[in-house]
Order: sequence, then structure tokens, then C-alpha cells
Amino acid sequence: MPDLATADVVALTAALCDIPSVSGDEAPLADAIETALAAYEHLEVLRDGDAVVARTHLGRARRVVVAGHIDTVPVQGNLPTRTETRDGAEVLWGRGTVDMKAGVAVALSLAAQLATPAWDVTWVFYDQEEVEATRNGLGRLARHHPEWLAADFAVLGEPTAAQIEGGCNGTLRAEVRTHGRAAHSARAWRGENAIHAAAGILTRLGSYRPAEVEVDGLVYREGLNAVDIRGGIAMNVIPDTCVVTVNYRFAPSRSTAEAEAHVREVFEGYDVTVTDLAAGARPGLDAVEVADFVATVAATTGGTAGPKYGWTDVARFSELGIPAVNFGPGDPSLAHADDEHCPTDQIRACAAALATWLTKENA
Amino acid sequence: MPDLATADVVALTAALCDIPSVSGDEAPLADAIETALAAYEHLEVLRDGDAVVARTHLGRARRVVVAGHIDTVPVQGNLPTRTETRDGAEVLWGRGTVDMKAGVAVALSLAAQLATPAWDVTWVFYDQEEVEATRNGLGRLARHHPEWLAADFAVLGEPTAAQIEGGCNGTLRAEVRTHGRAAHSARAWRGENAIHAAAGILTRLGSYRPAEVEVDGLVYREGLNAVDIRGGIAMNVIPDTCVVTVNYRFAPSRSTAEAEAHVREVFEGYDVTVTDLAAGARPGLDAVEVADFVATVAATTGGTAGPKYGWTDVARFSELGIPAVNFGPGDPSLAHADDEHCPTDQIRACAAALATWLTKENA
Repeated sequence: MPDLATADVVALTAALCDIPSVSGDEAPLADAIETALAAYEHLEVLRDGDAVVARTHLGRARRVVVAGHIDTVPVQGNLPTRTETRDGAEVLWGRGTVDMKAGVAVALSLAAQLATPAWDVTWVFYDQEEVEATRNGLGRLARHHPEWLAADFAVLGEPTAAQIEGGCNGTLRAEVRTHGRAAHSARAWRGENAIHAAAGILTRLGSYRPAEVEVDGLVYREGLNAVDIRGGIAMNVIPDTCVVTVNYRFAPSRSTAEAEAHVREVFEGYDVTVTDLAAGARPGLDAVEVADFVATVAATTGGTAGPKYGWTDVARFSELGIPAVNFGPGDPSLAHADDEHCPTDQIRACAAALATWLTKENA
Repeated sequence: MPDLATADVVALTAALCDIPSVSGDEAPLADAIETALAAYEHLEVLRDGDAVVARTHLGRARRVVVAGHIDTVPVQGNLPTRTETRDGAEVLWGRGTVDMKAGVAVALSLAAQLATPAWDVTWVFYDQEEVEATRNGLGRLARHHPEWLAADFAVLGEPTAAQIEGGCNGTLRAEVRTHGRAAHSARAWRGENAIHAAAGILTRLGSYRPAEVEVDGLVYREGLNAVDIRGGIAMNVIPDTCVVTVNYRFAPSRSTAEAEAHVREVFEGYDVTVTDLAAGARPGLDAVEVADFVATVAATTGGTAGPKYGWTDVARFSELGIPAVNFGPGDPSLAHADDEHCPTDQIRACAAALATWLTKENA
């Protein structure tokens, strides 16, 4: 691990990626981060499992959380990292460069460099974001040590191509089921075909027109889609069940109850079981802290604010009543790709914008 | 094994069932059958694998094959057999009583008793009917020793509740496929949902009106059904493929080429792959041998002739140019059931009808 305060943030990104930390195996990286941060007297360093928290105690009027997860999806022959040129621009290639060790490097670098930021800062580096929600390190911190996360605003360093993405859509999954009566397919008239009965479900999905919903000045695009369909138990049996799993991505202005009611209305007459439901997060761009952050980033990098479509951990801050945005280097559509790579100028731009904002006199 | 010539045919059925012979494990039963038949001088006994063939050489003008498979589907706690009373009638309960050791007992009993039948008879007891077609013992005999199966007519002892069921429908399976473009379900508008595209396939199936087709005086009911549907690779991915497996049961008057053309026409515009295709068998009830058999059975048992819907090995005889019918004790809808059981009067009725026909002076 290079010296945090003096290392180039791109070199630091490469060093972080080259310590593999697939979900569940973050200990070596968490140890390295904890040790590196402990060298700075302006930081109090805390640890829970493989999550490391470092915070200032400067008596500032406001506190911001800057957070990022340190785990990655499995390595697919895409380590160690290397520097390449793509379309004339320098990129850092390899697992984690986008999701999201570049964002972690930006935070570690500034945590070390900014001894007297204008806000008190809580830097959060957490584990197990890329696996089931129950293992999520940020959720564990919220359960074990909610006071560690207390803040007026949060910036999550998930990849946004160095733009600000506010809030996130909610997500609901439901099984929409048809029932029939089994029979041998040589005597199909004795049965009722549950797969045929699913035609109506698919027709409703095909004709569904998703809404675009404006929330706090950002337009969220919704979606309702089948992500799975299963029916049939043998090649000579008329099936008595067919299950269509649908995924509804809904604007953060809708409650989970409203989202569920909507899906039940769309599939009225069918057997609907909700299997997964998570609220979105309002972008909160009209909160004064967020507006100032947006203005500073825009002035520094030319970045604008848009909606985040995927569900991210900003929703956990939203649940805690803390306005939060996503802001980090890397194209989110390259997250988890074998060809994951991040433009190095985005890494530097994010670091510069955050540093500018955290040291602004009027903050 | 009781003495074939003197045992009661119901007791013989019970004895055959109590020698388990799940497909692939027929050797002990085949050995017992071979040994028992070898005791009769009027029979030449042949063997191929676990198939046993016994035939007369009386110089008769015509030869009939009487055939049955000796294997069963797996035993599900339904052995040993027992005699019960159901709705006031005596039944033999247990695995194989319907499918089809009662039919085998009828044949073994008559093979031993009828030293001078009016037809030359080839009695065929074969293995592995209840598994994939490539293992079928009758198919193997047709490949290894086609001369063993030479005949003017064939009676297959599959369960028909002691009625004559002529011929059988053909069967075709095809995968009907839609294609789309994968995307993350949070940004569904970047993809094309292949499951939604399957609505049209299911709608066509739902509105399909199967034909009823008269062949040689019997009416065959067709059917076109989905037996399986699969789509989706993860709960947050817009699927790029959906596969509906359809099963077309078609009247024996249609060729396999006609059946395939029909399915391709129904699903025009979709990607169709035929995965399984077997011709049906015409009932052949207008052939003189068959008509005489039908008349004799009707006079003996009051049984009438109807169509067979399921595909059976009569289609193999049909391929060899031999008219064939299904005729055996037991309700076919109880085949493979854990509660498999056969009325004992049907076992006796089938034996009596076959004996009457095989000893008729004008045969």
C-alpha cells in the first residue's frame, strides 16, 4: 500500500485493486486500510468486522459521510491491473477499477490529505456489498453502530462517470403465477395448461408503458419486466403451474406499499407473491447541503446531476434520514464486466472536486 | 414362477409382479421366463439381451406376434402385490399390475397352453420399454433379428381396459424460441425482453383448436400444448432468450413431414427447432386379420374398438408394415401410479378372448 497522503490517486487505485478482495475475503485489504489510516493523527479509526471507519473531530457545524465498499465481484483473469490507452484516453484496466476501488482510492487519499476539512468527515470503507443484502457491511454498521454513521449528508463513491447521480429507484420482485390441472400430454383435454394461461401475463407486460416520474428535479424512468419464467415438469405432462418473476423498478417518490399495490393492480386476477421489496431514495437535491455539493462539482468538473436507476446503498442513508448522492469515477455499465476499466482522468476529477468542496471556506 | 400351463392367470400376474424388473434390471425375470418357456416342446425359445422370444412352427398360413414388455417404472413401496376389493370388484394391486405384467401373464399362460393354435404365434417378451427409445428392447430386436418379428398381425398387450385400441397418435416436440437483447433490469429500455416476446407463442397455443381426424374408422383427437417454458438468467437481467417446448400429438394419417410443416406454420415468424418426432400408427382395423380379431374380442368380452392416444410400440410394428393393435388388461390412466391396480376380471377376459381367437377354426 503506497503512502496515502503522497501517492498519486491512480497509482493508489491500482494498488487497491491488486489486493484482491472478493466479497467475504476482504480481511487483508481491510487490514491494510486500517493500518494506513491509523498513521494520521487527525483521524479516529474504528473497525467492525472488515469495515473500517475513520473520522475527524474538528467541531464543525456539519458532518458528511463519504463511503465506499471495498469488495468486488469474483476476479475473472482481470488482475493485476494495467494502464492502457483506449480511444486516445488513459484507462486503468482490471477488476475493481470501476466498482469501486477508484472511488475508495479517492476517499483514502483525501482522508489522509485533508487534516482540516471544512466539514467534519466520516470516511467509511465497508465489506460485502456485492452479495445478498443481509451480509452488507454498511447495513451491519447501521445495526451495530448507528452513531458511526450519523451525518447531515452522505456521498457514496459508486461509479457514476464522475457525475452526480441522486437517489435511486426502488425495486420490487414478485412471482406471478398461473394454475392449471396436470394431465398426460397425449390426453391434453383432461388437463388445463398453466403455461398457456400465462399468455395474459406476458401480454400485459408487453403493453405496459413505464412512467417517467420527476422527483426533486430529477426524472426517474421506471420499468416493469419479466426476469424469469418457469413452467413444466416433464416433456409429456400438461403443466399445472407457471411462474413469471417480474421486477418493478419504481421512482423514489413511491412508497413500497404503493409499488406493491401497483404491481397487484397490473396483474389483477393472477396469483401474485412479492418476494423482494426495497424502497428507493429521493435524490434530495433541494436540500441545502446537496445543492451546494452539486454546484461545487459542476463548477469543478462540469458534471451535472442526474437520476440513478440502479438500487444502491444511498437508499440505506435515505432510510437513516440522511440525504445522499452517488458520485464516483467509472462507467457503471462496465461494473462486473470482464473488461472493467476506468478513465484515469475521472479518478483525478472526482478527487479534485471532492477536495474543492471539502475545503470551501463557506462550507 | 408357477407352472405356466396350469397356473391361474391372476396368480401368474402376481408372481411376475413380485419379481421386480425395473428397466435395466430385467435379467432375473427374463431368466425365469426363458426357463419356464423352454419346458414346452411346441415352442422354439430365443433370447437377445433380456428379451425372450418363443414361437411355434406349425406351418400355419398366417403368423401373429403377441408382445409385451417385462420392465416397469421404479417401485414406489407398491410391492409385493396384494388382492383387494374396490367398488365391489376384485383387483390386483401393485407395481406392474397395469403396465403391463397382467398382459405378460396372459401371453405366457397362452404360450404354454396353446400347443396347436390356429395361427403360428411369436410370443415376444422384451425389456426397457419405460426408458428412452434408444434402449427399447423391441427396437433392438427389430435391428438385431428382424426375422424374429416377421408376422401378418401383432397384438401388443399394453393396458386398454380389455378394449381394442387401434394404432396410436404420432408425437412431435419442438422448441419455439424468442430472442431479445440482454440488459440490466434497472435500465430495461436498453434491452429487449425475450420473455415478453413469448406472449405471441402462448396466445397462439391458447387459441389453437386441435383437430379430430378419422383414420380407418376411428376418430383420433389431436393436441398441441406447451409442456415447458424457460427464460431468464438472473433476477436483475432482461432475458435475451425464452424457449417454449411444445408437444404436438398428431393423427396417424399425418406423416412426420406433415406434422412438422403444421407446427412450423402455427409458429410462423418464430425460431422453431424440432427435437423429437415419431410417426403414429394407423389402426389398420380394415385389414382382414384385424377385423376378425376385433369381431372375436367383441363377441367374447363385449369390448369395442377405439383409438389409442398415447404413443406405443404398435408404431414399431406399423413401421415394419405389420398391422397392430393394443389389447390388454388394466386402466391405462393408472399406469405408473403409486396406486396401480388391475381388475382381475379384465385379466381373465383378455386371456379368454385371445384364447378364443387363437383357436378359432376359420383362423
